[in-house]
Amino acid sequence: MNAFCRDSYAYLEGAPDGPLAGLTFAAKDIFDVVGHVTGAGNPDWKATHAAADRSAWVVDRLVKSGATMVGKTITDELTRGIFGENPHYGTPVNPRAPGRVPGGSSSGSASAVAGGLVDFSLGSDTGGSVRVPAAFCGLYGIRPTHGRVRVDGMVPQAPSYDTVGWFARDADTLARVVKVLISAPASTAKPRLLLVAEDAFEVADPASTTALRPIVDIAASLIGASSKVRISPTGLAEWSRHQRVLQGREAWETARAWIDRVNPRLAFSVAESYMAGRSFTDAQVKEAAKVRADAMAIVDELLADGAVLCLPTAPTPAPTVGEPQSVRRPLGARIGALTCIAGITECPQINLPLAEVDGLPVGLSLIAARGSDESLIALARQVEAAFA
Amino acid sequence: MNAFCRDSYAYLEGAPDGPLAGLTFAAKDIFDVVGHVTGAGNPDWKATHAAADRSAWVVDRLVKSGATMVGKTITDELTRGIFGENPHYGTPVNPRAPGRVPGGSSSGSASAVAGGLVDFSLGSDTGGSVRVPAAFCGLYGIRPTHGRVRVDGMVPQAPSYDTVGWFARDADTLARVVKVLISAPASTAKPRLLLVAEDAFEVADPASTTALRPIVDIAASLIGASSKVRISPTGLAEWSRHQRVLQGREAWETARAWIDRVNPRLAFSVAESYMAGRSFTDAQVKEAAKVRADAMAIVDELLADGAVLCLPTAPTPAPTVGEPQSVRRPLGARIGALTCIAGITECPQINLPLAEVDGLPVGLSLIAARGSDESLIALARQVEAAFA
Repeated sequence: MNAFCRDSYAYLEGAPDGPLAGLTFAAKDIFDVVGHVTGAGNPDWKATHAAADRSAWVVDRLVKSGATMVGKTITDELTRGIFGENPHYGTPVNPRAPGRVPGGSSSGSASAVAGGLVDFSLGSDTGGSVRVPAAFCGLYGIRPTHGRVRVDGMVPQAPSYDTVGWFARDADTLARVVKVLISAPASTAKPRLLLVAEDAFEVADPASTTALRPIVDIAASLIGASSKVRISPTGLAEWSRHQRVLQGREAWETARAWIDRVNPRLAFSVAESYMAGRSFTDAQVKEAAKVRADAMAIVDELLADGAVLCLPTAPTPAPTVGEPQSVRRPLGARIGALTCIAGITECPQINLPLAEVDGLPVGLSLIAARGSDESLIALARQVEAAFA
Repeated sequence: MNAFCRDSYAYLEGAPDGPLAGLTFAAKDIFDVVGHVTGAGNPDWKATHAAADRSAWVVDRLVKSGATMVGKTITDELTRGIFGENPHYGTPVNPRAPGRVPGGSSSGSASAVAGGLVDFSLGSDTGGSVRVPAAFCGLYGIRPTHGRVRVDGMVPQAPSYDTVGWFARDADTLARVVKVLISAPASTAKPRLLLVAEDAFEVADPASTTALRPIVDIAASLIGASSKVRISPTGLAEWSRHQRVLQGREAWETARAWIDRVNPRLAFSVAESYMAGRSFTDAQVKEAAKVRADAMAIVDELLADGAVLCLPTAPTPAPTVGEPQSVRRPLGARIGALTCIAGITECPQINLPLAEVDGLPVGLSLIAARGSDESLIALARQVEAAFA
């Protein structure tokens, strides 16, 4: 299955010069492109929205910086999915793991970069939608500090958690895009301590943990100091459960008027996510907000003074295409226990695609304090270089 | 929108003689037709099922009785809907009320008969799926006694409530099909008392009640005696609420393995129905079963000795196509308060399409004791004749 949207050939020629001149990119079909209807992975969304009268801020910025946009990519419906299977438009191939899902929801963007069709691609990450496909497809992928990259012209899922992210096959390209899209003053703090998140590694399969060990060691030696930590006193699954309440409620509030009006066709699992969001009580939301505040304070303290957290991006390699939901649900919960940390804390996270299990990509993630995107990408480049 | 399935031209020539010779019919696309895939109103259902190796019992019986089948008709997805709007295949027109829904789930079957495309058509009625479109499209329609017409080769929704039903433009044609499909020994009891269900009329709009009054009077004078009753001591809405628990749970149990395996695309409202069914607790189901048994005993006593109940089939004429779900939900609840009676009690019900409100069809229903299908259709023919 093609990574690109077949019904919307969106091409924007990059400016003749600029820091990204000569690079090509694709954008997840949740970013407005002037003159095109943004489809958001659902035909009923597409049918009930008009063509964009301007491009999303990030698209415009990239094109003005010299990058040429060559297409829109398939997304999970309304960004609600972590595996990358879209029942309307198909499942983009995972070029690094044939027969396996690409991961989602930025499925087509990851597929296009992994397949060498473009140099980099835009995705979005609300609950893991860049980090997980980066891990499954063996790509560098970044979820920046929440709020540091403008989301104008992007279809929202849950604004308190929505971020623009991107994929590349090497850390250098990822870094070049960071420079263009993140223009606020950079934190100059250098990484001083690597924290190995034991409770996060316990979520992963032992084979993944073993495969990631050499990268952890390289990162530790580059930074010069490391220690083991447990991030969540109550358990990452517990954090994730509360995170689902907050994100789910917000996603429901964002979509409810459209759902009421259109009664859209959605995959059962996607309808299920919306209805879960609708079902959460105010008391549950209040409790979840309290858990979030506590978790944020814990991680803030851990990451003070240049500490960097490392953890598996996902607990396993990409699963096989077409598995039943009863198999996917527990895997989704384990993924959520890992991805919730950056979601809760708004911290930047980068996937390093430097390991394999049985020939399938697995990734190590680095998380740093909010605003440390630049030093985090610098560290990622060092690890990449040391690993080569 | 065409009433017929456009991707499945199912034609079966009727036997050269037989009681239905010369009549044409269409069948809702939940009845197997040999050599065709039964679509059930959902493309993912169609894609995950093979062609039928034999026709449904009712289809076969009709064809052997001389009727010629000329097509399959659009149904609400998996029969889960009462308004007749299918997001995948469109909303069949309501020839009697342009711009209004045809009613569902036997939407295309009602549309085809109302539009004069066939002489009669097969539908199914689990929670009102023949009675409501009959009322909305101005047709005679029957939900027979539960269990009296074989359901072999019909896609089930909730077997304890599923019935085969049919539509015609006149009571005589409806009766001819009754004779062919219901072969068990007929009850010979004659209607002796018309019971006017006051609590059911209170559910309807005053305009509908007023329009139905002359038919009530004709039926009363034909039978020779009438009296007012209240059917439910606790309220029809309460009966309906419990009925939804039983039917909903059973529908979920029927579909859950397929949903788990396929993660199908469904309209949000349909996914909502399945999830409601899944959410009911065993305690709720137990309580609902108790309410059902009590309700059945009450209605059995009312209908003993040849009493016939009359009530509005639906509370209003057909609503406008495309209304938001927040408007539809309360109307659906009112419809359920009327349709639940035959569902709970397994009694036969016939819609008499003999009234209008502002030019839009409204129907009076007759309900008789289980097994009285033949005397009920005989009464319907008398009312039709007297009304002409």
